[in-house]
Amino acid sequence: MTAEEMITVAKDNGITTLTLNQPENRNSLSMAMLQALSDQLEERAGDAETRVVVLAASGRVFCAGHDLKEIRGQLDSHQFQLDLFNLCSKVMQQIVNLPKPVIARVAGVATAAGCQLVASCDLAVAADTARFATPGVNIGLFCSTPMVALSRNVSRKHAMEMLLTGEMVSAHRAEQIGLVNRVVDEQALDETVHHLAATIASKSGHTLQIGKEAFYQQLEMGLTEAYDFTSEVMAKNMQAADAQEGICAFLDKRKPDWKDK
Amino acid sequence: MTAEEMITVAKDNGITTLTLNQPENRNSLSMAMLQALSDQLEERAGDAETRVVVLAASGRVFCAGHDLKEIRGQLDSHQFQLDLFNLCSKVMQQIVNLPKPVIARVAGVATAAGCQLVASCDLAVAADTARFATPGVNIGLFCSTPMVALSRNVSRKHAMEMLLTGEMVSAHRAEQIGLVNRVVDEQALDETVHHLAATIASKSGHTLQIGKEAFYQQLEMGLTEAYDFTSEVMAKNMQAADAQEGICAFLDKRKPDWKDK
Amino acid sequence: MTAEEMITVAKDNGITTLTLNQPENRNSLSMAMLQALSDQLEERAGDAETRVVVLAASGRVFCAGHDLKEIRGQLDSHQFQLDLFNLCSKVMQQIVNLPKPVIARVAGVATAAGCQLVASCDLAVAADTARFATPGVNIGLFCSTPMVALSRNVSRKHAMEMLLTGEMVSAHRAEQIGLVNRVVDEQALDETVHHLAATIASKSGHTLQIGKEAFYQQLEMGLTEAYDFTSEVMAKNMQAADAQEGICAFLDKRKPDWKDK
Repeated sequence: MTAEEMITVAKDNGITTLTLNQPENRNSLSMAMLQALSDQLEERAGDAETRVVVLAASGRVFCAGHDLKEIRGQLDSHQFQLDLFNLCSKVMQQIVNLPKPVIARVAGVATAAGCQLVASCDLAVAADTARFATPGVNIGLFCSTPMVALSRNVSRKHAMEMLLTGEMVSAHRAEQIGLVNRVVDEQALDETVHHLAATIASKSGHTLQIGKEAFYQQLEMGLTEAYDFTSEVMAKNMQAADAQEGICAFLDKRKPDWKDK
Repeated sequence: MTAEEMITVAKDNGITTLTLNQPENRNSLSMAMLQALSDQLEERAGDAETRVVVLAASGRVFCAGHDLKEIRGQLDSHQFQLDLFNLCSKVMQQIVNLPKPVIARVAGVATAAGCQLVASCDLAVAADTARFATPGVNIGLFCSTPMVALSRNVSRKHAMEMLLTGEMVSAHRAEQIGLVNRVVDEQALDETVHHLAATIASKSGHTLQIGKEAFYQQLEMGLTEAYDFTSEVMAKNMQAADAQEGICAFLDKRKPDWKDK
Repeated sequence: MTAEEMITVAKDNGITTLTLNQPENRNSLSMAMLQALSDQLEERAGDAETRVVVLAASGRVFCAGHDLKEIRGQLDSHQFQLDLFNLCSKVMQQIVNLPKPVIARVAGVATAAGCQLVASCDLAVAADTARFATPGVNIGLFCSTPMVALSRNVSRKHAMEMLLTGEMVSAHRAEQIGLVNRVVDEQALDETVHHLAATIASKSGHTLQIGKEAFYQQLEMGLTEAYDFTSEVMAKNMQAADAQEGICAFLDKRKPDWKDK
């Protein structure tokens, strides 16, 4: 299976949908799948036709996490394992660092590093039939990298319950605890995701890039540092053509004509 | 319009209500309004008659954020913009650093830096008709400073949804995600805020000051450092007259007679 | 009263229940009770028969926080107070640092350092009759150490509301804001806690230890550092016998036979 077959790419008016396409392998994050995803994300970063990325999956499993068969074949290779987890961690951070918003479209089950994928996206919409778990504890391999993303989405007792029990969490529970933004009827999933993505794609790409980048940076700062940093970001943002156009359009009660669209 | 007209001040038994009073300008945070608010907060810090501050607004808009007309008049002045965002960030931190609790009383719409004001207060009570948004993305100017306060109130996916879509969030949704403490019928708003403020105003002012200050400081520390710091704060707090009076009054089953009341 | 009487110990298939047993003193965290709890936690850390700890209490009060009568007898001793708060902070961190999961089983009222105990546990299950408060502000002694744990469980406006008002929060509200994982009918409390503890006790103890330790460590790191750290933790975890057994058992569709059970 080629990288192009493992992850299909569909473009529609600035919205690029990346679909994990190995349902027969539960869309597992094998070394090959991770590399394909990493390459895709790198390509999307510089792609002028992509303003918003939707991360989807084909079949009844969104993503089952690492490929355990592949791992079993390499139980003796500490190097393989290090490479695997490092690549996986790189991909998750590529999502966070991508200068464009990423929306997870979750139908089916998202477990372990699959749950981490959802947690790593900027936004997530789930079908009411979706389910989530970090079940590494059931196979003796604690979900230590998935919990980095999980624990930055949900409060610590909720994260700990998922991590220590390994049990499935319903879509509605995932919404309650903040792992996903919205839960909708499975029939409405595509429309909801498309509407959300199109809303965001209608904004200035330059503005989205500034904002997303600053968002994750300021989260790691103390309050004073965060304000010093973002005050400069705002003032710099103001100098951009799209801000000046946006402010004038707003005051003139007309639609803005973005330079970066 | 004088600073005294822009922000009205009402005092009632230790509760000082600051009311943004430019409804015709949607209570925008113009340079003048920010300066008036900054001056008010500085004055309240040292005002023995103020034990709790309520931040309110007149008219149907709580606060619409920055004054875009003023900004449009200064599009070429990077210095004006830097000064503006720095002053705004200073005001928000003055709320956090004020040695007295601040409660936002929100009726109507709070957007952009107006939403940031609500997020920056220690507590917030909203009418069920209130609405919140960080819509900078719609005018090409990402709400990068508002997100500092927003993302320290709500989980990151909820913050990102508001920031990337710019869409309005209802009062009930704001309560669900943690942006406000309580939502009440608009007719009950004043009574609810007053009851909450009066409850807090009945405590020892010295104790409130110790606690609020330590709260925001320890939030930025690791666990060990936070415990080392707050253990000393507790032991020092114990040496205060009001703690000794409070403990004795509790054990003697009588009302405490605070020194700092 | 001896330490053995103050805290009773019951062992059942890897689940060790520590019960605060001074209901006549509202299970207050006197110096003696704190020392007994500290000793118990130290003993459980190295106890091969303990895989999960349940923290419970006898009587209608889970824990009322510090022993105010004891404190009143030492109002002049700054050293006693420092020792007391330092020991209390040590115990709370012992819970966090214990290499085994700790579940709070809360019936009745948990206030001040009692509420902190609940917040410090990895998981918490409460009876629907349980109630929570950080009422130090009512006696002039702000709950500055309890807020370290509280503010790491719930969002800041929720924490501030509890801290500034000192008012009781219902079990259902505690669940909504993330202070406890689950609320059940009081009659179902023991069964729910036991089921949760037994689920966790069935996992590999070595895996639980790796995961719990890494969880709290990565929480204090920035994203990049957290991923670098946990990627190594995962790769190291893979080398453990229980991970290799768990993966093989999963792929072979059989129950894992943990080495550390």
